[in-house]
Amino acid sequence: MSSDTASDDAARERLIDMAAQFYDQFADGEIPAMELPTRSKSNIVFDEDADVWVYGDRTSTRSANSASGARKLLKAVYTIDFLAQQLAEDRSSTLRELYYLSESWDEEAAQFTNQSESDSLVEDLEIVSGVKREDFHMRPEESGAKVMGPLKIREQTNRGDREIHCQDDVGQGGYQIPNNPDTIEFIDHDTEFVLCVETGGMRDRLVENGFDDEYNALVVHLGGQPARATRRLTKRLHDELDLPVTVFTDGDPWSYRIFGSVSYGSIKSAHLSEYLATPEARFIGIRPADIVEYDLPTDPLSDSDVNALESELEDPRFQSEFWTEQIELQLDIGKKAEQQALASRGLDFVTDTYLPERLTEMGILD
Amino acid sequence: MSSDTASDDAARERLIDMAAQFYDQFADGEIPAMELPTRSKSNIVFDEDADVWVYGDRTSTRSANSASGARKLLKAVYTIDFLAQQLAEDRSSTLRELYYLSESWDEEAAQFTNQSESDSLVEDLEIVSGVKREDFHMRPEESGAKVMGPLKIREQTNRGDREIHCQDDVGQGGYQIPNNPDTIEFIDHDTEFVLCVETGGMRDRLVENGFDDEYNALVVHLGGQPARATRRLTKRLHDELDLPVTVFTDGDPWSYRIFGSVSYGSIKSAHLSEYLATPEARFIGIRPADIVEYDLPTDPLSDSDVNALESELEDPRFQSEFWTEQIELQLDIGKKAEQQALASRGLDFVTDTYLPERLTEMGILD
Repeated sequence: MSSDTASDDAARERLIDMAAQFYDQFADGEIPAMELPTRSKSNIVFDEDADVWVYGDRTSTRSANSASGARKLLKAVYTIDFLAQQLAEDRSSTLRELYYLSESWDEEAAQFTNQSESDSLVEDLEIVSGVKREDFHMRPEESGAKVMGPLKIREQTNRGDREIHCQDDVGQGGYQIPNNPDTIEFIDHDTEFVLCVETGGMRDRLVENGFDDEYNALVVHLGGQPARATRRLTKRLHDELDLPVTVFTDGDPWSYRIFGSVSYGSIKSAHLSEYLATPEARFIGIRPADIVEYDLPTDPLSDSDVNALESELEDPRFQSEFWTEQIELQLDIGKKAEQQALASRGLDFVTDTYLPERLTEMGILD
Repeated sequence: MSSDTASDDAARERLIDMAAQFYDQFADGEIPAMELPTRSKSNIVFDEDADVWVYGDRTSTRSANSASGARKLLKAVYTIDFLAQQLAEDRSSTLRELYYLSESWDEEAAQFTNQSESDSLVEDLEIVSGVKREDFHMRPEESGAKVMGPLKIREQTNRGDREIHCQDDVGQGGYQIPNNPDTIEFIDHDTEFVLCVETGGMRDRLVENGFDDEYNALVVHLGGQPARATRRLTKRLHDELDLPVTVFTDGDPWSYRIFGSVSYGSIKSAHLSEYLATPEARFIGIRPADIVEYDLPTDPLSDSDVNALESELEDPRFQSEFWTEQIELQLDIGKKAEQQALASRGLDFVTDTYLPERLTEMGILD
C-alpha cells in the first residue's frame, strides 16, 4: 500500500471528473468535447517572468462531432477507466504497457493503433486534468540517474519505506533515483549545493576524489539529456531544501541544451515546466572562456555545432549577457571541449582547482 | 585504502615486468619488441569446448625497428608508468581520462593522437599481461546496471566497506552495480536463480509485481547491450553462488545478440571471455514460438532484421537445435515482438503465467 493515498485519491477524482463531464454533456444533449491548449510549436511561449516555457493562449477542441473525434474521446474514456482502476489498486504501468494493454480492451475501436497515439493521449490528460503522469502512476521507460552526497532520504517503495543516506548506505554507484521521485522525502542533510554532472566518467571522478564529502556537494549524475525523474528531483532539492543548483557539462552547444532543459524546461514538456524546471540553476562550465583560460584540449566545431550555436543565439533561453558572450566567443575560437579534457592538467585539477575556483567566482563557495 | 592490495600488487608487478622486459632487451643489444595475438576478426575463433570466443594462434610483433613501432613502445612505457603509479596510489581513471592525461606528459612523442589509440593500447596491455583493465584500475565510461533480489553483498568503496541487502537496503531502483564488480563480495543469499532483463520497463514490472520476492529471483537489469560490469557480475553470480542464469529479452535478432554477449562473449572482448561470459546462461524468451503460442502483438521483420537473423543462422553461437528452430520459425512468420507486448494479456501475465511456465519447462522451477 502506498502511504501517499491522499494524492492518489485526488488524481483519481480529477480523472473521474473528466469522464463525468462527458456524461453531463451527453445528459444535457450536448456533443461531448474536451478543450485543451494547442500543442503546436507556435503556441509555446517563453514566460519571461517565470523563466520557463509555457503554453500560449490558443486552444483546440476535441469533439465527438466526427467519427474520428468520437473515437478519440472513446479512447480517452477507456484510458481514464484504466488509470482510475490502476490508482484504486495502487499499481503502476509504463506508457508502452498502456499501449499494449489496450489490445485486451473489449471495444476494438478504443484500442490504440500505435504508441505515439497513447503517449499523446496521456499528455492530453495531464494537461486537461492538471495532474502529472507520475500521479496517474504512469512510469517512464527511462529511469532516473544516481545521486551521491550528504543527504538522507526516505523512499516509499511498494515493499515498505526505506531510509537511505546517499553516502553511508550506498555503494560507489550511489543512490538510484526511482522513476517517481515524489516518493522520496528529504529527512536530513549537510548539503551546501547541488552539482549536476553530464557524463558518467566525470561523475565517477568527483566521487573517487571525494568532492561530495569535502565540499558537502550533492552530485547528481545527469547521464546526457536528463530523465524527467532526475529533473524533478533537482527541482525539489532546490525548492524544498533551498539549495543552489549548478550544472557541469561538456563545452559544446548540445551540452548547453542539457543545461537548458534542467533550468528552463523543454518545448516537449512545456506543460510541466513548473514541475520539472529549475530556472535558478546556474551553469558552471565547461565555458568557452575555460577553453581559453585553461588551454584545454579541444576538437574543432563541426558545421552542425556552428548551426546549433547560432540557433542558441536566437533562443530566448540564452539571451543573457553571459550566454551571448560565451557563445560568440566559442564561434570565434571555433573549438569545443569535453569536461574530461580537464584531465590534461592532472586527475585532481577538476576537484582541487577548477570547480573550487568557479564555485567561488559564482559566490557558492566563500 | 583498498583492502584488495594483494591483487593490486600483482597487477603492478605484471606491468613492471613488461617494462623490465624492454629494458632487458635493450641491455642484451636486442631491438625491444612485444608479441601479441593478431587482433583481426580472422584470428578470433569460437572455442567449442569452452563455448566462448577466443583468439586463434596467429601473433603479431610490435617492434622498435621502425620509427612508428618505436613510438608505440614509447607510448606503452609511459602508459605502464602511469598505471603502475595509479595502482601504487590506489587511484583509478577512465579510458578517456588516460587519453587526455597524456597531454600532460613531458615527452611529446608519447602523447596519444586520439582516444582509439590509447584504448587499443590498454587492450594490448590487458592481453599481454593477462591482467584485466579493471585490475589496472581503469574504469569504463559506461556504468553497470542495477540489481534487485534476495542477495546481501559487501562492497569495498573508496570510503570504506558497505554492506547492502539488494531488497531491504535499496529503493525501488535497486542496487547500482559499481564499475568494478570485483569490489563486491557475496555475503548471504536466498536466491534460486538469476533473471537478466533487457528493458527498464520490464525490469520495473517484475519489481512492482514482487517477482524477485515471490520466486527468490535476482533481477539484473541489462539495459540493452550490457556493460562489462553487468556481464562480470552475472558470471560471478553463476560461478561463485552456483546459480542458474536466465536471460529475458525482446524477441528479435538484436536481442538474441544481447543474450549472445552474456553467454558467449563478444568478438571485441574475445580476450576476456573467460572473465565476462557465462556459457551456461539460458534464454527464456521472447521466443518466436511465444509469439505464436501467446498470440502477442507484433511488428513485421524489417530487411535488416531478416539479414541479422540469417547471419545468426551462420553464427557458431547459434548452432544449437533450439536456435536453428526458433530463427527459422521467426523467418517463416516474419514477425518480432517486444517483451512488454506480454502486457496485452494483462499486467500480471508475465509474472503469474509466462515466466513461471517457461521456468518450469526449463527445469529451473519445480
